[in-house]
Amino acid sequence: MLGGGQLGRMTALAAARLGYRTHVYTPEPDSPCAEVSAAATVADFTDAEALAGFAAAVDVVTLEWENVPPEAAGLLAQRVPVRPGAAVLVVTRDRIREKSFVNCLGIATAPWRPVHSVADLTAALQDLGRPAVLKVARLGYDGKGQVLLGPDTDPEAAWHDLALGQALDAVLEGFVDFACEISVIVARGADGALCSYPAVENQHANHILARTLVPARIAPAVAAEAEAIARRITEALGVVGLLAVEMFVGHDGRVLVNELAPRPHNSGHWTLDACATSQFEQLVRAVCGLPLGATGRLTDAVMENLIGADIERWPELLAAPAARLHLYGKREVRPGRKMGHVTWIGRAVTP
Amino acid sequence: MLGGGQLGRMTALAAARLGYRTHVYTPEPDSPCAEVSAAATVADFTDAEALAGFAAAVDVVTLEWENVPPEAAGLLAQRVPVRPGAAVLVVTRDRIREKSFVNCLGIATAPWRPVHSVADLTAALQDLGRPAVLKVARLGYDGKGQVLLGPDTDPEAAWHDLALGQALDAVLEGFVDFACEISVIVARGADGALCSYPAVENQHANHILARTLVPARIAPAVAAEAEAIARRITEALGVVGLLAVEMFVGHDGRVLVNELAPRPHNSGHWTLDACATSQFEQLVRAVCGLPLGATGRLTDAVMENLIGADIERWPELLAAPAARLHLYGKREVRPGRKMGHVTWIGRAVTP
Repeated sequence: MLGGGQLGRMTALAAARLGYRTHVYTPEPDSPCAEVSAAATVADFTDAEALAGFAAAVDVVTLEWENVPPEAAGLLAQRVPVRPGAAVLVVTRDRIREKSFVNCLGIATAPWRPVHSVADLTAALQDLGRPAVLKVARLGYDGKGQVLLGPDTDPEAAWHDLALGQALDAVLEGFVDFACEISVIVARGADGALCSYPAVENQHANHILARTLVPARIAPAVAAEAEAIARRITEALGVVGLLAVEMFVGHDGRVLVNELAPRPHNSGHWTLDACATSQFEQLVRAVCGLPLGATGRLTDAVMENLIGADIERWPELLAAPAARLHLYGKREVRPGRKMGHVTWIGRAVTP
Repeated sequence: MLGGGQLGRMTALAAARLGYRTHVYTPEPDSPCAEVSAAATVADFTDAEALAGFAAAVDVVTLEWENVPPEAAGLLAQRVPVRPGAAVLVVTRDRIREKSFVNCLGIATAPWRPVHSVADLTAALQDLGRPAVLKVARLGYDGKGQVLLGPDTDPEAAWHDLALGQALDAVLEGFVDFACEISVIVARGADGALCSYPAVENQHANHILARTLVPARIAPAVAAEAEAIARRITEALGVVGLLAVEMFVGHDGRVLVNELAPRPHNSGHWTLDACATSQFEQLVRAVCGLPLGATGRLTDAVMENLIGADIERWPELLAAPAARLHLYGKREVRPGRKMGHVTWIGRAVTP
């Protein structure tokens, strides 16, 4: 497992249920994943010697963080299968390549332009109008690395805010007046078998996922369209593992792709408590060459993230019969840090 | 966690979900539990120094093996809460004390006599008749340490078979013509709160649990009586943690207590897949002083143990949509060894 956060941790727990030993590779000492793994390598993703030692110790590699340098994935791939592989990471780590790839498949995104300079930005703003959002092409997450350009925002100031004087690739995204945000998680096996989880609805607060509603409150035809889009992208990318596809649904029911993540996704945490096979077990099945499991929804659910001080709610959540609490074992509470989540399962279960 | 087998492993996985770090203490190197735990001490239960170091490193102690020497539990208890405590182990590790305790509560067992010699055995056989089963008082499990006395069995030979020349405590149990075997698992919190899982039916093969049917095929009044008995014993023992109570149900619906186990129990593995709170999470809640979780059955289920070469069935089981597979990561397959289990959940879930 490349990366030691909560996604790696929940994957390691699922792997253990199937009898596998997880070896985590992470730059972070005391990572949430290492505490439940049979082995850990603490090293940077640029450390070729540590990567070689890791590759020699494991049978197959997967990841919980799409920003693993493709060079590291390539180096590992010389010795051991890496699933998903470097080619997938090259696309999904960069918003420009990702959006180009999606559009090349004939699948719609919000209107966007690549931006490499203030001049690009000014031209793009003229094309797309305001408001618009300027986002770094790489390494942005949870609202980090983006600037909203409202009616009065000075493009030069916005560019310098974002670029901080560095040469930078970015994208400008035009405004989309959507009805809701949804996501679909697709699993693809080593044999090419494909299956998808039902579309769910995501509500954000401060650019961080706050709540996932299962199922999404959208028409069946829209849900089917979203699943079909997510499957097409997964197949075209040749992902072995998981692909989470975030989408906007317009008031007219039109579906636009927002972002891709080739790993377990926060919007799939509900699958731990309301599906026969969780997204984490599904990832293990896919990368280990096992048959994929059943993805049907056993019950309606609402997943709530516990962010920063939300963690203080744990005693109340533990006492609620319909709540299933998951805490990540992080030692320090920080604002905006994902500390755990709770799934409210649809059927009230009396103790 | 005292003991490093699959019960400890599944408890450690449940603890991790709640953000806890597990430290396992086990004489066994490469134990199933250590692979998913944050820390491990590999030492004998008689190693006072290792026990002291372990006690200093943890906040609370529980166990997955009722034969942990009460002396070890007592030593730990001088420094840290041990749940369940040494007093419970003193009763449940010894069939004579256990049956006496149960009978003292006015609860029926199969007729039995303590046996310390051939003379005792001969007298007991006259009281109870044949067939009867002679069992060692301590450390017997899965049919080990017992001899059936049929119409022609020579008591002296049976005694020597069992005692192998050692001074030994044993019990003779009279024959019970039961309709089925059931069990009830009760959880009791640090605050005395009590809750129980529904009665389940256990089918054995070669003295090893083969299959658990959920719920047990017994009348509601019998199930209620079984739950009430299990709760009374748990309360009387003052268990903090879990108590599994194995019982016989006669053709007349009468319930007789067979055995107690103050730990997670094989007949409760189905709770991982068909209850909001598994027996393992419940144990963590109880020993950590948290509120107990909901124990209602969400679906019917059948749990099958994978014993020895049964493990070879894993590819077929992984591919079955209604099967939830759990493997324990044991490196060596041995006849009679519990390698994993599968829970068939009642509702067929289509992929």
